[in-house]
Amino acid sequence: MENYTKASVAGGARTELHELLHLTGAEISVNELPAGACVPFVHAHKQNEEIYAVLGGEGHAVLDGETVPLKAGDWLRVSPATKRQFFAAEKSGIRYLCIQVKEHSLGGYTAEDAIL
Amino acid sequence: MENYTKASVAGGARTELHELLHLTGAEISVNELPAGACVPFVHAHKQNEEIYAVLGGEGHAVLDGETVPLKAGDWLRVSPATKRQFFAAEKSGIRYLCIQVKEHSLGGYTAEDAIL
Repeated sequence: MENYTKASVAGGARTELHELLHLTGAEISVNELPAGACVPFVHAHKQNEEIYAVLGGEGHAVLDGETVPLKAGDWLRVSPATKRQFFAAEKSGIRYLCIQVKEHSLGGYTAEDAIL
Repeated sequence: MENYTKASVAGGARTELHELLHLTGAEISVNELPAGACVPFVHAHKQNEEIYAVLGGEGHAVLDGETVPLKAGDWLRVSPATKRQFFAAEKSGIRYLCIQVKEHSLGGYTAEDAIL
């Protein structure tokens, strides 16, 4: 496999990086919802943990029926079985990353996995 | 395990999210290098793929001796064995995410892993 891959993401409703970057341990999407919009369905996962990072704007998530406010700088880990849906605020769009990884798949990391 | 965890990251040199968010499939760090600074060592990994996202500013990476320019919106996948080092530009700091996942750990994803 190549030693690295690079891509630039300019913005837009949704950019998926798995194929673009030849990812093997994650799928990552860069998402933008305009003010007043939402992802039009509730979903959960079979095996994958999802990690959300809010890059800009405001909105909220509904997680198993609980409303969780979101603003730039917020991060969420969502367990596979949790039912989730994402909403932009009425007066602000929201830009966020969704990082999808297999639950419990990480072994050693950082110092334990590093070669210096 | 909890159905979700949430944290807010205000900025700073480095924030590691694995313990903060109880991640099980990734380690993620939010990093900031001031203008003219660099990570003071070259490193590689045993098992983990790293995915870097540039959130703001400018700089470059050196990957197996090759200089790769970086600016906001750029994404990199770096294979475990690749020797890497990160630098801010002389006149601009750089803010970036590092997402560490086990190479080849992802199975199905998105539609294949979803429950609607």
